[in-house]
Amino acid sequence: MEEVETPIPGADETRVRVRAAAFNRRDVFITQGLYPGIDLPRTLGSDGAGETEDGRAVVIDPMLEWGDDPRVWSPQASILGMPRDGTFAQYVVVPRDNVYAKPAHLTLEEAAALPLAGLTAYRAVVTRGDLRAGETILIPGIGGGVQTFALLFAKALGARAIVTSGSDVKLERARALGADVTINYGANPDWHKALKRGEVDIVVDSSGGDTLGKVLGVLRPGGRVVIYGGTRLDSTFRIFPLFWNHLDIRGTSMGSPADFRGMLDLVNLHEIHPAVDRVYAMDAVNDAIAQMAQSEQFGKIVLTIP
Amino acid sequence: MEEVETPIPGADETRVRVRAAAFNRRDVFITQGLYPGIDLPRTLGSDGAGETEDGRAVVIDPMLEWGDDPRVWSPQASILGMPRDGTFAQYVVVPRDNVYAKPAHLTLEEAAALPLAGLTAYRAVVTRGDLRAGETILIPGIGGGVQTFALLFAKALGARAIVTSGSDVKLERARALGADVTINYGANPDWHKALKRGEVDIVVDSSGGDTLGKVLGVLRPGGRVVIYGGTRLDSTFRIFPLFWNHLDIRGTSMGSPADFRGMLDLVNLHEIHPAVDRVYAMDAVNDAIAQMAQSEQFGKIVLTIP
Repeated sequence: MEEVETPIPGADETRVRVRAAAFNRRDVFITQGLYPGIDLPRTLGSDGAGETEDGRAVVIDPMLEWGDDPRVWSPQASILGMPRDGTFAQYVVVPRDNVYAKPAHLTLEEAAALPLAGLTAYRAVVTRGDLRAGETILIPGIGGGVQTFALLFAKALGARAIVTSGSDVKLERARALGADVTINYGANPDWHKALKRGEVDIVVDSSGGDTLGKVLGVLRPGGRVVIYGGTRLDSTFRIFPLFWNHLDIRGTSMGSPADFRGMLDLVNLHEIHPAVDRVYAMDAVNDAIAQMAQSEQFGKIVLTIP
Repeated sequence: MEEVETPIPGADETRVRVRAAAFNRRDVFITQGLYPGIDLPRTLGSDGAGETEDGRAVVIDPMLEWGDDPRVWSPQASILGMPRDGTFAQYVVVPRDNVYAKPAHLTLEEAAALPLAGLTAYRAVVTRGDLRAGETILIPGIGGGVQTFALLFAKALGARAIVTSGSDVKLERARALGADVTINYGANPDWHKALKRGEVDIVVDSSGGDTLGKVLGVLRPGGRVVIYGGTRLDSTFRIFPLFWNHLDIRGTSMGSPADFRGMLDLVNLHEIHPAVDRVYAMDAVNDAIAQMAQSEQFGKIVLTIP
């Protein structure tokens, strides 16, 4: 931690006094040098909630310059916290349009857990995934921020949710959030065979590797896989079910301003509370990063800013 | 060839006197035992044109019982020529709704080349691919029926078309049909590097293997790959461009009645002539199958029925 100048807002910008921030895998990748466009020194942090100068409690949309096309971000698009200074600080300056009223039912710590993962999950499940009430969603590897939001949003929308994990503790917590079916894949590389062929309408995944091939086999004809990231670099699958069953594989990253508003509307309407794994004080930030790197959390890791 | 009973139409069916039929890869796969649901003995043939009992010149939609969902075929769906007796015969009985007026500008031989490949290409390019005028389409491995129709339809719709082949002869023929850029991949495993990153809006492919990974790298953000088949069973690709560039991989097979009508409308409006590689007489049917198995043709192989 170090002292920096308090940032000055430019035209169409506003300064937020950050009260809570939250971690994303992106922050860890950046500290490991594994992210495009790293430019140091920089204050990290994409997620934040706090107060504006005029005293409104707000949450920040970390997607900057998405652009006018709802289907895809513009070439100018970037994410708060790299290359623009982020939320792991007492003050952050952001475009005025990126500041939204904090949902009234949430604490500032809970609100700080929403932005990046909630936006990504909302676009994956709703905008790209087109999930309908009564459909079945499969969420492999429950535990990360996006996956827990995908579960919360899918249940709010009236879907049936199947989750997998290598950890019974995480599966138990997923059940408490509404998961209908839980599968521990730890002991069983053929975990997908526990599912009936055609049982699943939509999969939301970021695992890559052989997961894609497995889930294509359990999707119903006309089903879809939405991929919002990939911790393993390559993916291999049999082509046949893709074309024979008219399946879609849809890539997504972050979300548009309309997605962010839609996400907040859903959270407000159903009074959804993010899954917060643990709250750290600012001076324990390195412990928080170390915990993130272990991937042992369930839901978001939050940082309070003094 | 053998004599069989002239088939009798049931309720809502009609009998067509077939004058010309055409081959599809499916027919070859069936003779090799490589197709789901083979049930012998059976008259093969999905593509046909001829006359109804009341003397109308018609072309047959080979997609049977697609169902009510435009997104995906019903569980009852099947394709003319297996398990239902097909068009390699003097008479075929089909549902009345599957018979359409032959485009006036086409001969019966040309009309017989349309149905399965034209339907598949139309759905891939238009319904699933959503190709717009001014966009760039990449068609790897030009030569097969679907690929040549994809080129013809894309050019009719005002797109720019890039095609690849291992054969300069096929590339020359593609150029004559309107291809704007031709790439011979034969000598060059890195053929995709001849394209600018982001130059391509849509890819229509059935090759599988490493083609998918290569084309994902040249698609613009928001672009899509439509896959209508796969001659190689597995496909491997890097996940990163998929989610970072918001790409779609969309599977498709055959098409709905609305797709068939849309295809005929496009063919009529632009007076499109199918690429016909060669016309065989019925008693040379085995020569035609042998030519199909070599994959040396450019466009459709047609059979005249005496």
